[in-house]
Formats: sequence, structure tokens, C-alpha cells
Amino acid sequence: MTRTELKDLGEFGLIELLTKNIELKNKSTLRGVGDDAAVVDHGNKKTVISTDLLVEGIHFDLAYTPLKHLGYKAVVVNLSDIYAMNARPTQITVSIAVSNRFSVEAVNEIYNGIHLACKIYGVDLIGGDTTSSLQGLTISVTALGEADEDKIVYRSGAKEGDLICVSGFLGGAYVGLQLLEREKQIYIEHPEMQPDLENKDYIVGKILKPEARKDIIEFFKKSEVLPTSMIDISDGLSSDLIHLCMQSKVGAFIEEKSLPIAQETSVKAMDFKLPPTTCALHGGEDYELLFTINPRDAEKMKYTLDVRIIGEITKSADGINLHTSGGNIKELIAQGWQHH
Amino acid sequence: MTRTELKDLGEFGLIELLTKNIELKNKSTLRGVGDDAAVVDHGNKKTVISTDLLVEGIHFDLAYTPLKHLGYKAVVVNLSDIYAMNARPTQITVSIAVSNRFSVEAVNEIYNGIHLACKIYGVDLIGGDTTSSLQGLTISVTALGEADEDKIVYRSGAKEGDLICVSGFLGGAYVGLQLLEREKQIYIEHPEMQPDLENKDYIVGKILKPEARKDIIEFFKKSEVLPTSMIDISDGLSSDLIHLCMQSKVGAFIEEKSLPIAQETSVKAMDFKLPPTTCALHGGEDYELLFTINPRDAEKMKYTLDVRIIGEITKSADGINLHTSGGNIKELIAQGWQHH
Repeated sequence: MTRTELKDLGEFGLIELLTKNIELKNKSTLRGVGDDAAVVDHGNKKTVISTDLLVEGIHFDLAYTPLKHLGYKAVVVNLSDIYAMNARPTQITVSIAVSNRFSVEAVNEIYNGIHLACKIYGVDLIGGDTTSSLQGLTISVTALGEADEDKIVYRSGAKEGDLICVSGFLGGAYVGLQLLEREKQIYIEHPEMQPDLENKDYIVGKILKPEARKDIIEFFKKSEVLPTSMIDISDGLSSDLIHLCMQSKVGAFIEEKSLPIAQETSVKAMDFKLPPTTCALHGGEDYELLFTINPRDAEKMKYTLDVRIIGEITKSADGINLHTSGGNIKELIAQGWQHH
Repeated sequence: MTRTELKDLGEFGLIELLTKNIELKNKSTLRGVGDDAAVVDHGNKKTVISTDLLVEGIHFDLAYTPLKHLGYKAVVVNLSDIYAMNARPTQITVSIAVSNRFSVEAVNEIYNGIHLACKIYGVDLIGGDTTSSLQGLTISVTALGEADEDKIVYRSGAKEGDLICVSGFLGGAYVGLQLLEREKQIYIEHPEMQPDLENKDYIVGKILKPEARKDIIEFFKKSEVLPTSMIDISDGLSSDLIHLCMQSKVGAFIEEKSLPIAQETSVKAMDFKLPPTTCALHGGEDYELLFTINPRDAEKMKYTLDVRIIGEITKSADGINLHTSGGNIKELIAQGWQHH
């Protein structure tokens, strides 16, 4: 592979390289990259904005993160926030700071992942900033989305008696991360050994190349369900449920036996001597959607295979609890936030 | 001063601290900080977006940059981009990555500057991300603005015969930076000496606490002038004029004798044995507005004291030239971009 030094290309050369193939897909994008600012026409729709900063050594480890996956994930985690508002993402801006350790090819590989995510989720890259750094890689993504005002779902709308639902499976990203960390340690100590990632596609994929739940938002639209509240699970079910309850001023209980945990996650968690329930409650980075619905919409949940009802909203005074499989009640606490 | 470790407060405690006093000022801000994403209602106005990433050691040196000024500047440089579209900035998001070298008080001081800029420019802080970093400080700001579609000014609208105008004075930020760098070297070599910044308020202010030219945009509105093209001067007059000409597919000449250089800038530049013209052409970071007008609007420029006509747009084939005070013609080249 050719190695071109960043300094040989210069900032404008780099921007030119990274943005030359952008095709704008949204009618609302009046002007994309190339001016002082992008221009978006959201007409009578509401504009929804989310932003995330990913820092090398804190949010990702390049020892086991392919650069293209990293670019892809940086976009997806932002889109997940837009979907968590029941909105449709339409545009992103991407800023990136790189040290001279990175070649043009490396930065281009990150952008390949960014462009792929844009293509798959139908969003336009409309601007950004590229700069050097003294050390390491930092990626900042801001996503904009649109929604009709009366369809926007906040964290604050949950009411007593609402059912708590979650998409997909939980804990996979966390167990996948443990696996990657272990293989990295083995590699450091025994560089001659090959990583043992066979048959770990699902959990490794959950941490390295997560997807945002666009399909769930489309399901809401098709089946005319409007969740009463919603949040995406980035810090962990427990921590994010607490956020939702605090903002809705309610309590909640969830049933341990209803927690959706994929078999591969459970098996691998046991290998690491981690209780699967702990991984599902506190794991984080699953980017699934946690939402509440009015009980009259429960029937409609049958029409999607990938949503499970895991608990119920209660009075604030009841607190936020886990009903364990053994019949006990344990208060839920926030243990997430290790990667932020 | 108390020192609270970031880890003792935690991410959510920090967010709570940094966002508790936010008062939303724009009717278009439907939802600010505290959900997965902010919600902005731009009705029939167009949304304009700009983003910048500021990296310690690349864009700023904390040896001479007060943290409050840094926060202020991080916002202002983004607002400058929005004004350069002839738009009104309405909201910003701010993401920040800090190492444990920074205390809560330090981060709070940065936000004091951010909040002050929001107050002075009438924009709402509506979201962001805070995270740790292994080393150094990174700030990413995204600004949104609004404008009527037919009032948005792009870089691409300059026509042959248009007059080239610039707001304020040029080169001050660059000379101010040289001064700060020199004082830093003296301090490193002779820590007992006090910095000699007396009577350097203007140029030091230009680099440490620049302002965005909101007043010029307001002048355009009041006097019913619509520039044919516009860009803010962040990389240097020469480099940014080249951008504008490339996108407008035109040539240009500017008159050396018309370049607006403040006396303090000239005097100090000579101290450093730097030709003032070079500082004005290639200095960068002045955040003044460079724009072109139809000659029929030239009369109206008399009504603002702080805009000067410095040249004229020509055919593309004529190139981009400087008419020197000595009567020579020199091709302008891009020499900016040392801080990006």
C-alpha cells in the first residue's frame, strides 16, 4: 500500500480527497461541503441535532479496531441518537484530528467507513473540519435529522403503567470488548499467537461495527405506534433507564428473565466469569433502543420480531428496580460510563 | 481555588454543572441539552451549519491562552462562519475532550467563556458531549444559523467588475501570536521575567479573544446590501481570496496600499522584521469578512466606517494578483494554514 504523508497533501488536498465523491441524497440539503457552512432546508419539519466526540485510547483502541469500522461506528452512534428521537437522520458533519502517525491512506480508510454509513443510512455528509493533532486520533460527528413535531419522542414522556420495551439483544458489545481486550493482551505477551476470534462474529461485530435501529423507527411509522418515551442504550440499560425515569419523573421495574441476551453473549460471558445479566444491565455500547409504550399498543409489538417487553413504568416513589429470576427485588444503579 | 478531580464528579455530574444555567433565547430552540438530540424549528428559514475542531498544541497554547478566552474563541470562530453566509447564528453544540490534567474548575472556566460568547451573540447552547482524553484538550463546536434562502451569500457568486471589500483590520492576530510566542520563549528561558504585553491590548486581543463580525451582517440588512460572495478570513486574506475566486471561477486584484493594517500591527510587525503587508496577506485568524459587492452598492459602504474596498474581481484568466504600492503586479499565493 502506498503511504502518502499528510503534510505532502496539505489540508485542502486532504479535504478534496475526502469529499470528492460525495453525492447528496436529501432534497433538504441545499449546500453541502465547500462553503463556510452547509445549508439545510427543513421546511416545516423540525431539525434534530446530535453530536459525539470519539477519542483514541478512550473510545477505541486501534490495536483491534479496523479504521473503516471506526469511521462507520462514529457515524452510527450519532444516527442512533437521532433515531432515539423518532426522527430520520438527514445530514452529518465530521471533524477529525490526526497526528502524523496516520497516513493519507489511513484517513481515507476512516472516511470509507463514514461514506459507507452515509450510504446505508441515507444521510448526507455536508461539512466538517480536518486538522492535525500532536498525538492520537479524535473524531467528532454531528448529525441532523428531521421529524414532524408531533412525532418527536423525548426521554420525558413515560407514564405510570406504560410498558418498557427494548430492541435487539443486550450485553453483546460489552462481552465482545472483553474478548478483544483479552486477545490484545495475549498478542502483546505472545505475538506469535493468532487471535482466537472464530465463531465470535456476532459479539465482535456488536462492538466494532454496531448498527443504529433505523428499522425500529420505520416499524413505528408503519404500525402507527408512537412511543411515550425513548432513549438509545449507549451507557447500558440500567444507566439509560435511570436517565429516562429521571426525566419522566417515574419509577420502573424490569424483569430479569425478560432481558434479551443472545446465546453467544451468555456463553462467552460465562467464559469470562461475568453474569450475563450484569453484562446486559451495565454493558453499554449496544445502541439498541429503550422505549416505553402505552399498554394499548402492546398488541402491535407482535408485528416486529426484534422488540421485547421487559418491564413496566411505576410511580416515582417506587424507585427503579430489577425483579430477579430468583424472586427478589434489587434496586438498579448506574454502573455504565466506562468508555466516556 | 478548589480543585475537584473530574473523576470525582463523573460525566453526568460534569454535564449537570456545565449546563445548569443555560437559558434558551431563540424561539426556534424547541429542545436543548438533555435528550438524545436537540430540536430546532427553523420553519421556513434555511438552516446553516458550521463546525470546527480546536486541538491543544495545534490551534492554541495554554501557556498563554486563558481558558475562558479559549472557550469564547472556540464559539466565535464558528459564528464567524455562519455570518460569512450572511446568516444569523442561533444554536451551537459543544463537545470537549479533557485529560485528567484539567480540573473541574478548569473545564468550568472554558464553559464560562462559551456561555459568555453565547450571551453576547445571542445563540443557544443546545447539546454536546464531554469525554476524557489520554492527553490534551480538544474542543469541537458546531454552529447552526438561519437565513432566508434568497439572502444566503456563498463563496461562488463573485462576478467580473465586483468590488472586493474587507471588514476591520488585517494581520493583527498573526502579529499578536508572534508576540505571545516570543514572551513564552522568554518566560521559558527566564522564568523570573514578567511578560511585556503592555500597550499590546489590540493585537493580543485579536489572537486571544477575536470577535465575529455580527455588526457587518446587521449593516448589510439595514442598508439593503447583498454581497455577491463572502468568506471569513481564517487562513489569511490571500488564501481565502483564492478560495473565493476558485469557487466563483474569477480572477482578482487587490491594491497593497488599500490593505487595512492597524498602526499597532504595523509597528509591532516591524519590530519582528516582518513586512506588515505579508502579515495582512498571510496572517490568518483575523476572522474579518472578505466579500464582494456589485459596484452600484459601493456608495452604501460609506455608511459603515469599518469596511474598506481593497480591489476588484477580474476574468479568471487574469489570475489573482497584488498591485504593489511600488507599481508592480505580483501573483498572490496561498501561504496560510499554519495553525490547521
